[in-house]
Amino acid sequence: MKLSKKTLEQRLDHVYDVIIVGGGAGGLSAAIYLQRYRLSCLVIEKGRGRSFWMQELQNYLGLPPGTPGRTMLQQGQNHFLSLNGDYLMGFVEEVQDEGETFAVKVKVGKQDSIHPVFRSKYVIAASGIIDHLPKLDDMQNVFDYAGHNLHVCMICDGWEMADKKCGLFVGSEGAINTAFVLNWFTPYITVFTQGLFEVSDEMREKLKSHGYPLIETPLKRFVGHDHEMTGVELADGRTIELQTGLVAMGSHYYNAYLKGIELDWKGGNLLTDDMCRTSHPRIFALGDLKEGLNQVSIAVADGTLAATAIWRDIRRSSPPRLWEENLNVITQEGVPIS
Amino acid sequence: MKLSKKTLEQRLDHVYDVIIVGGGAGGLSAAIYLQRYRLSCLVIEKGRGRSFWMQELQNYLGLPPGTPGRTMLQQGQNHFLSLNGDYLMGFVEEVQDEGETFAVKVKVGKQDSIHPVFRSKYVIAASGIIDHLPKLDDMQNVFDYAGHNLHVCMICDGWEMADKKCGLFVGSEGAINTAFVLNWFTPYITVFTQGLFEVSDEMREKLKSHGYPLIETPLKRFVGHDHEMTGVELADGRTIELQTGLVAMGSHYYNAYLKGIELDWKGGNLLTDDMCRTSHPRIFALGDLKEGLNQVSIAVADGTLAATAIWRDIRRSSPPRLWEENLNVITQEGVPIS
Repeated sequence: MKLSKKTLEQRLDHVYDVIIVGGGAGGLSAAIYLQRYRLSCLVIEKGRGRSFWMQELQNYLGLPPGTPGRTMLQQGQNHFLSLNGDYLMGFVEEVQDEGETFAVKVKVGKQDSIHPVFRSKYVIAASGIIDHLPKLDDMQNVFDYAGHNLHVCMICDGWEMADKKCGLFVGSEGAINTAFVLNWFTPYITVFTQGLFEVSDEMREKLKSHGYPLIETPLKRFVGHDHEMTGVELADGRTIELQTGLVAMGSHYYNAYLKGIELDWKGGNLLTDDMCRTSHPRIFALGDLKEGLNQVSIAVADGTLAATAIWRDIRRSSPPRLWEENLNVITQEGVPIS
Repeated sequence: MKLSKKTLEQRLDHVYDVIIVGGGAGGLSAAIYLQRYRLSCLVIEKGRGRSFWMQELQNYLGLPPGTPGRTMLQQGQNHFLSLNGDYLMGFVEEVQDEGETFAVKVKVGKQDSIHPVFRSKYVIAASGIIDHLPKLDDMQNVFDYAGHNLHVCMICDGWEMADKKCGLFVGSEGAINTAFVLNWFTPYITVFTQGLFEVSDEMREKLKSHGYPLIETPLKRFVGHDHEMTGVELADGRTIELQTGLVAMGSHYYNAYLKGIELDWKGGNLLTDDMCRTSHPRIFALGDLKEGLNQVSIAVADGTLAATAIWRDIRRSSPPRLWEENLNVITQEGVPIS
């Protein structure tokens, strides 16, 4: 059921099999599998994750191209609730390892917040990442285009950028190298650093040799209309025409709640085995929180894997279910005495 | 475009980037990604694969529970065709490694068959498996229930079998062990061997200790109506009431076309790396043909991985695309002379 401030109290004594932090593609896939494995789980979703912002999902089998990410999420949430799973809007502040169980502390409600603690045997970290965007005085101007024709994922949307005049917005020299992959899709690339860092002479030369202009002047604003970005206005008053853009400024990882637990990391990513199990045997990590491609299809498969591994663990440590009424009536031939 | 006997001739001189053997979930996912990576590919589908037979897909995020497998496949095929991919109904008879390319020999048409040969740089084996079913004189009687409440995949449909009287149909002693996993979902299990093999005393004892009857008499037919199986009639005239069934008789692997190429196998499964690459650097294997869970979500993610690995290969060996008109006009500061 969908839990609220009023109804969540009845779950505070319950020990869930699994608490899933994050109701994105990975978390919901895991949740659907887990309920179908007859395990009890709680999905805690803070809202507005990366797939929520996807205006058009173009590469996930089974959904018509252009399906909004939120349509997929809504369908998954309905599916999960139809299987009697618990779902709560809230922000997970901390996960504590209590030995047999985890204590998951959640902030519920932006106003008059309450801080309930839920318990589970397993935790799935499926809280994902969110892309850093160019910081402008008027952030609404950025949101107007981000996820439309100002993209954040080249694998997802390279096709949409093909052969268009593309602004590449970066926050570090390393990220400029994105240009030399993006040029598979389009060579008409202008790199914007906003003057956030120094560009080496070597990189300047490399860009020049490819014909890719480098603009280091800060951005004033994106220009365009109806969510279609048509260029940028610079702080010095110049306007650069563009037909599309790619933001490659890194990501924020939603993993602060795990910081009290010793886990193996590689940069911001949790290290996992091939079933998405972290170095803690009862904590799993899915999708963008672990190494690999940040794709919906990968997160969905990760959810399948983690749920199946957890089911195997729990099943193997449970007593077998017997067909009681047959126990004393099966003959040597294996058939019941009728 | 959808190729036919009449139109395929125009593609016989073309070298595709990738030929995908199998238009199931994995193959179509790979195909959609590949076209979006601006690579050219041909999907060859023989028809009636495992996901085609799925009457109700219950665990794939984004599709309402109960969506038929063929609806997902049709959507994927439309999606792929909208990206200008080539699709052909045909049966791949042989893949020959010619060095730089593969020659893929296809049988097209059941009557007046023709045997065209297509060429590609890469091959993706996504031809999957099909479940062995109990062999009865009247196979239509089996098909009436298979995929409805006579299931073939416990992970997919365990939830649907929960706490029901379930027939477990096996073809080997090893497969009887499925009962001791299936009992997570229901303990009301009757094992049917059809007398196909000898059951050891140890296994008889184990079944008896769980209360699971063992029936070794051959089946005459399934009974039921409207695709709902309600029991089996045995060759000796007895009828056993059931509410559901699970067939665990192994699978046929569609991989004969690869037998002329040296590849690493583990049983029927192709061994692959974490991007689904087989021991041949230009042959990939997806979904049920490789080790792991036989789930739609896994096949779809495999398609993502294989397509991305192939794109990386081809991109890295291609010359970079330059913005030609800028080459001589970019200043030391990186901006074009206007």
